[in-house]
Amino acid sequence: MAEFDTVIRNAVIGTAADLYSADIGITGGVITAIGRALGPARRDVPAGGRLVLPGGIDTHCHIDQPMRSGISLADDFLSGTVSAAHGGTTTIVPFAAQVHGQGVRAAVDDYHRRAAGKPVIDYAFHLIISDPTEKVLYEELPALIREGYTSFKIYMTYEMLKLNDRQVISVLAVARREGAMVMVHAENSDCIAWLTEQLEAAGKIAPYYHAVSRPLAVEREGTHRAITMAEIVDVPILLVHISGAEAVEQIRWAQARGIRIYGETCPQYLVLTAEDMKEPGFESAKLVCSPPPRDKASQEALWNGMTSGVFQTFSSDHSPFRFDDPNGKKRFGETAPFTKIPNGVPGIETRLPILFSEGVNQGRIDLATFVALTATNPAKMYGLYPRKGTIAVGSDADVVIWDRDREVTITNDLLHHNCDYTPYEGMHVRGWPATVFSRGEIVVDEDKLLAQPGQGQFVKCDLPSLAKPRPR
Amino acid sequence: MAEFDTVIRNAVIGTAADLYSADIGITGGVITAIGRALGPARRDVPAGGRLVLPGGIDTHCHIDQPMRSGISLADDFLSGTVSAAHGGTTTIVPFAAQVHGQGVRAAVDDYHRRAAGKPVIDYAFHLIISDPTEKVLYEELPALIREGYTSFKIYMTYEMLKLNDRQVISVLAVARREGAMVMVHAENSDCIAWLTEQLEAAGKIAPYYHAVSRPLAVEREGTHRAITMAEIVDVPILLVHISGAEAVEQIRWAQARGIRIYGETCPQYLVLTAEDMKEPGFESAKLVCSPPPRDKASQEALWNGMTSGVFQTFSSDHSPFRFDDPNGKKRFGETAPFTKIPNGVPGIETRLPILFSEGVNQGRIDLATFVALTATNPAKMYGLYPRKGTIAVGSDADVVIWDRDREVTITNDLLHHNCDYTPYEGMHVRGWPATVFSRGEIVVDEDKLLAQPGQGQFVKCDLPSLAKPRPR
Amino acid sequence: MAEFDTVIRNAVIGTAADLYSADIGITGGVITAIGRALGPARRDVPAGGRLVLPGGIDTHCHIDQPMRSGISLADDFLSGTVSAAHGGTTTIVPFAAQVHGQGVRAAVDDYHRRAAGKPVIDYAFHLIISDPTEKVLYEELPALIREGYTSFKIYMTYEMLKLNDRQVISVLAVARREGAMVMVHAENSDCIAWLTEQLEAAGKIAPYYHAVSRPLAVEREGTHRAITMAEIVDVPILLVHISGAEAVEQIRWAQARGIRIYGETCPQYLVLTAEDMKEPGFESAKLVCSPPPRDKASQEALWNGMTSGVFQTFSSDHSPFRFDDPNGKKRFGETAPFTKIPNGVPGIETRLPILFSEGVNQGRIDLATFVALTATNPAKMYGLYPRKGTIAVGSDADVVIWDRDREVTITNDLLHHNCDYTPYEGMHVRGWPATVFSRGEIVVDEDKLLAQPGQGQFVKCDLPSLAKPRPR
Amino acid sequence: MAEFDTVIRNAVIGTAADLYSADIGITGGVITAIGRALGPARRDVPAGGRLVLPGGIDTHCHIDQPMRSGISLADDFLSGTVSAAHGGTTTIVPFAAQVHGQGVRAAVDDYHRRAAGKPVIDYAFHLIISDPTEKVLYEELPALIREGYTSFKIYMTYEMLKLNDRQVISVLAVARREGAMVMVHAENSDCIAWLTEQLEAAGKIAPYYHAVSRPLAVEREGTHRAITMAEIVDVPILLVHISGAEAVEQIRWAQARGIRIYGETCPQYLVLTAEDMKEPGFESAKLVCSPPPRDKASQEALWNGMTSGVFQTFSSDHSPFRFDDPNGKKRFGETAPFTKIPNGVPGIETRLPILFSEGVNQGRIDLATFVALTATNPAKMYGLYPRKGTIAVGSDADVVIWDRDREVTITNDLLHHNCDYTPYEGMHVRGWPATVFSRGEIVVDEDKLLAQPGQGQFVKCDLPSLAKPRPR
Repeated sequence: MAEFDTVIRNAVIGTAADLYSADIGITGGVITAIGRALGPARRDVPAGGRLVLPGGIDTHCHIDQPMRSGISLADDFLSGTVSAAHGGTTTIVPFAAQVHGQGVRAAVDDYHRRAAGKPVIDYAFHLIISDPTEKVLYEELPALIREGYTSFKIYMTYEMLKLNDRQVISVLAVARREGAMVMVHAENSDCIAWLTEQLEAAGKIAPYYHAVSRPLAVEREGTHRAITMAEIVDVPILLVHISGAEAVEQIRWAQARGIRIYGETCPQYLVLTAEDMKEPGFESAKLVCSPPPRDKASQEALWNGMTSGVFQTFSSDHSPFRFDDPNGKKRFGETAPFTKIPNGVPGIETRLPILFSEGVNQGRIDLATFVALTATNPAKMYGLYPRKGTIAVGSDADVVIWDRDREVTITNDLLHHNCDYTPYEGMHVRGWPATVFSRGEIVVDEDKLLAQPGQGQFVKCDLPSLAKPRPR
Repeated sequence: MAEFDTVIRNAVIGTAADLYSADIGITGGVITAIGRALGPARRDVPAGGRLVLPGGIDTHCHIDQPMRSGISLADDFLSGTVSAAHGGTTTIVPFAAQVHGQGVRAAVDDYHRRAAGKPVIDYAFHLIISDPTEKVLYEELPALIREGYTSFKIYMTYEMLKLNDRQVISVLAVARREGAMVMVHAENSDCIAWLTEQLEAAGKIAPYYHAVSRPLAVEREGTHRAITMAEIVDVPILLVHISGAEAVEQIRWAQARGIRIYGETCPQYLVLTAEDMKEPGFESAKLVCSPPPRDKASQEALWNGMTSGVFQTFSSDHSPFRFDDPNGKKRFGETAPFTKIPNGVPGIETRLPILFSEGVNQGRIDLATFVALTATNPAKMYGLYPRKGTIAVGSDADVVIWDRDREVTITNDLLHHNCDYTPYEGMHVRGWPATVFSRGEIVVDEDKLLAQPGQGQFVKCDLPSLAKPRPR
Repeated sequence: MAEFDTVIRNAVIGTAADLYSADIGITGGVITAIGRALGPARRDVPAGGRLVLPGGIDTHCHIDQPMRSGISLADDFLSGTVSAAHGGTTTIVPFAAQVHGQGVRAAVDDYHRRAAGKPVIDYAFHLIISDPTEKVLYEELPALIREGYTSFKIYMTYEMLKLNDRQVISVLAVARREGAMVMVHAENSDCIAWLTEQLEAAGKIAPYYHAVSRPLAVEREGTHRAITMAEIVDVPILLVHISGAEAVEQIRWAQARGIRIYGETCPQYLVLTAEDMKEPGFESAKLVCSPPPRDKASQEALWNGMTSGVFQTFSSDHSPFRFDDPNGKKRFGETAPFTKIPNGVPGIETRLPILFSEGVNQGRIDLATFVALTATNPAKMYGLYPRKGTIAVGSDADVVIWDRDREVTITNDLLHHNCDYTPYEGMHVRGWPATVFSRGEIVVDEDKLLAQPGQGQFVKCDLPSLAKPRPR
Repeated sequence: MAEFDTVIRNAVIGTAADLYSADIGITGGVITAIGRALGPARRDVPAGGRLVLPGGIDTHCHIDQPMRSGISLADDFLSGTVSAAHGGTTTIVPFAAQVHGQGVRAAVDDYHRRAAGKPVIDYAFHLIISDPTEKVLYEELPALIREGYTSFKIYMTYEMLKLNDRQVISVLAVARREGAMVMVHAENSDCIAWLTEQLEAAGKIAPYYHAVSRPLAVEREGTHRAITMAEIVDVPILLVHISGAEAVEQIRWAQARGIRIYGETCPQYLVLTAEDMKEPGFESAKLVCSPPPRDKASQEALWNGMTSGVFQTFSSDHSPFRFDDPNGKKRFGETAPFTKIPNGVPGIETRLPILFSEGVNQGRIDLATFVALTATNPAKMYGLYPRKGTIAVGSDADVVIWDRDREVTITNDLLHHNCDYTPYEGMHVRGWPATVFSRGEIVVDEDKLLAQPGQGQFVKCDLPSLAKPRPR
């Protein structure tokens, strides 16, 4: 056996199934051997008995996505991936969003241009379908799927994005025929609109009322409806950013009936609550996102859902709008009604530390579940596996040495995104990535960036095995 | 790196999380490296691109366990382990059963004597607690746990074995304090007794009525009660050999509420039904087991439970009574009422092929789930992990090369147990173990036994991590 | 006490709570006394120990409602009420249906003209809202409610009638503010449309496929969504013509959570199944209705729902299209695809005998439940109580002497509607109305009509107490 | 028509179905006419437009029942019935409790002796079966049923009373064969015993810990088990004094599956909580009862259960132990552990006012539900209907004129039981009985007792129609 490029020695390797001690041998950016006392390498990296996990895959994050009237996301493909890498993430799958009236291929081309020369870690794209014309459904999507864009995202709410049920079904039918995965943002748009009107009429416009305008029932209904359409078309779907106990109940109900439904949740729903939005003034605008933060009971339901099979993936839904910025949360001023506040929170860098600290270190989930939710399942969900998402021979050497006992108080200064706040300011976590490898190269080491812009590569997605309907 | 004892080359390795191609290097009975083109070995075993999986762990099987009045199990630790090995199983965890009025340590000693010099694969013991005296609970069990017997089995039915609720709780409380795992056979004994009386009074005594005397509700109630006691004591338990859709529903309900309940099911409940017992004559005595085979709807519920997190383990509940034998099913003659028929079916050898064929090859479960249910989870459930249950550096080289397309029609002639029938006679399966390794040695190769009696070792069980209560 | 107009002597009186023997004294069309040996009357009607129940109230029936292109309903206000009366019904509440682009008051005026001079029993109107403009919602409806039209019906499916969620919510909000009751036809229109397309593309166009195009999940989803909107607006609603076990489950779920949801079912869902539609040829067009007949399991769920509080009312959904008629089921010929067949079955006359026979006489429901579902609850649901719906002092003397053991084989010849078939042809029932009183006058006696056209009066509905939201 | 003995004039009569204005004519203690302007009577009682309801039937109350070692109930058949009558109750059904080792007939004889000459209102008996010997089951019970004792009560907890599952099933089987109704006190006795041991070992012995020793799960389990046994035997049962949301969920689940299960709840579970027992000292001993008071969520579940069909009856479970008394709550001193405190609260007089005030006047239940739960259903449940439980011609004139707006602050001074406290001291209610009739005679008028001891009669119970299993 030839000399390795790199050997990470004395690692405690964690996968979605296993935990064991070994060295990891890397050649050509790929893991070529795992063993005791592996042979010589050009570079030895001593792990010193620390935990080595697959790099995180963040399959729900918004990067450099154009927004309506004067609002813009804070992160481009450089700052976004630098921030991700510091948080232990080695692959992102952001969105290429179709613009109404234009094609999806145009969006793909546009986002490749946006990414060009910037990412420090690997990336793929989901396709947001906002205008499912015949041409889109039957020409563009089949072609794009073959080119490595095998997942779509659709919305049941948001004026500019939402599809009606008929359109949702059309997209699901294409997914079924072509073998693609569909991510669904499920909320009842009309209920939100009516509740919003009532709140506005009552002068309840502070940021907190954003949460009131989207109660649990609204997410539950969207979830039930999406499940029904998936059942009718007979195709698996992934319900993204599930936040409330009632939606969890719907997914579990569907799974119990044998309907193939997947679920995703995010850090903001585990550690924030709507109560946190009751501060006076505009400060709470920082927490405005959809669905909104919920309550303690829903947090419990989410934790339980992660250990009992309801959820397969855990993503950031990173949507970084600067707070004190005319193109961010304050676009329409500090007295703007909640309806005018850009929806979203940043979190691409804090995703893994929060789940590691609150989940693994608090004993709520085990390490295998952590890896499954943050890396292995996302890779399988979107056709990136086995190239990404695990530590196994043949996989890209996207791995992270964790310092599982490092204590960190999260502040925005510490983070590397281009957002001017974090919703987790002051939160104490234990466990932080120490060294982050992308295809065998160290991109972050002890909080220092060692990667060059553009070093990250675009990855084509295969047809995901999880998108196949169960046999009948 | 020194020469390996053995290298299995060109394997497609499946674990509970991963599937990838590599060589497996074995030294001293342990996996010491997994990699591409591993270095030289004293023995090369070409896998030729075939699937290599962790050897099965059968954690529910009855071997050489003395029975009441003249009835005896067909398999001892030789025939039982030979049969297991041929079916791809490399570790068994049978029972050391306390005799009423005696201690548990006496049982352990007895079963070690029974095993001595016989097993061809490794083994551990669960402790059946049938008489939980103060001495047993507070002296014997704590000591035995420290010696590597970390799981108990208790019964809520069977005259000679059943514990009342108060006793069940006592055992659970010991398990909680000491960190042991408790397996529960959950059926409502008094309901069965009453139904049996009614059936007997109506002259309904053919083997089929065994199934009628134990309807779904009886298992459901036992399951609900066991869950409640586990919830009250706050300790995880495993509900064994779950057969009916209603019991599945109870476990899912408990898991959804955050109660830490595990579930096990068995091949007989996936492929047999009570309808199969309607044949005239005594033939159906072959299928008499408890719980009994159910119906198609329950089979669906079990399959779904395996993919949606309800079940963690899949065992044989191997209980081999010879059919045409005065010490077996016909102990009391061919016209004996169902109450006199020994309860149990053989299945230690067919467990994995049936699940592989009906599950993996039919597309009902994926390979990772197969490995999790049959090897990795059982190892974790009972403190055998990481020594057993996976293919990873540092683990015992208990692995199986599978011929995933071999077509086999199951007949009893083919099998190696000492039972004179199989409930699966004539069943067609696809997929069969080709070569079976125990600690690096080939014990079965292409249906030929290469192991010596007594080659199998006793394995002490650690405290299982899965027995820890969730933090509150 | 003055002489009575009429005394029904020796009656066994059944109400929604009670069953007892007494005479019923009637003066001025109103029950003025119930007692033993009541004083003299101008007319004595001996009940002879037979059962006397409140006349049925059919709150879901389509009479003389104009349809699309050349199709017409078979019954006008004469034939419809004559048929109803023969079946033991003494009040109907058909629909005044808004025409798209016109007002609701125009519809009310139109239907009063249609009714003028015809009905032989009393009647009120529900308002079908198909075009909820601002004027309709905030001017017409409030005014019409005050004039005695206190219930609305809305559709979530049917091209010409369906409201989108936003419109549904608007109507619910008006109902909440004004205290009106909303009836919802809940099916997911887009799922039906897509399934229909798939069936058509596969050449599956026979009448049977109408049932396939509207599976249980489609009704379940509509039901869940309607429940959610009612929950959000916080107003009770009635889900009409519930047919499937899955929709039943949703209503029960809502009721268990304290959401005020009412349910209605109909005879066709108790005794017909989709299997009955598998006859070759066009015959099955007779059974085409929406939702379609289901299966045995759903029938069980409906029966159980009637005894366990899920359902409050039992109506006919009488929608009589002649079969062998160019304006009826055969409007587009005998080879027309199912999409072209008018939706609906007749049943205004058979409603009570079927429920009495299959329910009361078979022991599935008790007599009090029969009365509650067919008379008392409908009266309370729509503001007709206590004038209608019971046998009590002060109520209109709308009562029926039942011959509870009369055996009848239903044939269309026997019936008095203007439809040329009944879906229950050949069905055997036990129990039939013997004498039917409307406001103290005998309208039907032993199958003979004694009433004059126009004798029935329009009844204004009060605000229904059941429409009030529960206190919070 | 002859002159009436009494006419209650200008009443607003409420039944379980109806609400209307009329006079009530009474002859020979029986209602003989209800009508407008009834003819002359020897005595006119003007109701003045007030509400007149059926007298309450309290089917769960303990009167003069001997207890263990030196403890005694405060009320005998005089004080108990006087208190009941003041609270608007006109029939009680207390228990004749079998003493272990003796027969049931002996108990019946004993309780008739205890009652002799004392009751001021009518009464029947349930039979408590604590020792179901063959003689009891197959000789005494069938004979006693024919003599008018058609309901049994059994316990799944309490050392001296509890039956094991086998015994429970035996009693259910007798009930099924004979047509009797079985009331079940469902709690898991062994769980309670174990929890109690843990609490005692931790020195947690204050009265509050009584509630901790019987958590929701303990009642839920007993409920599920009782349901299962009823399902297996196929006989309806009544689950008494349901207190917790989890038990409510079980009953609803059973009803949804078509298992004929009835439910009862009591005032203490609607208005008290375990939190109320946290006062320091022994004061909380007043609230010690089993099951214990729960929490707000359970109260909501109970209210909802009353309107959605879960509960059929509402009783007091009157168990009056004097507080400051050596034979009552303080039998073993003020520092006695909770296990020594007699279980029970008084409430026979406050039952109806509390439900009327909190239920009807607060809008949580309607008047028909109030009457159904407190009078009509109890009568039907135990074979007292139609003699008792309604206002209808032919029924006993057991009626109550209610002053629905009378405001009362409950204090023990106001009450007529022989207990020295009420758990509702200081509670404000609106609505109180003004005049109470038993078989046409006024027994209480404006808080004054007008009845003589012994005026109440023993009533034989018929076989209850509700005890019949549903047809299959």
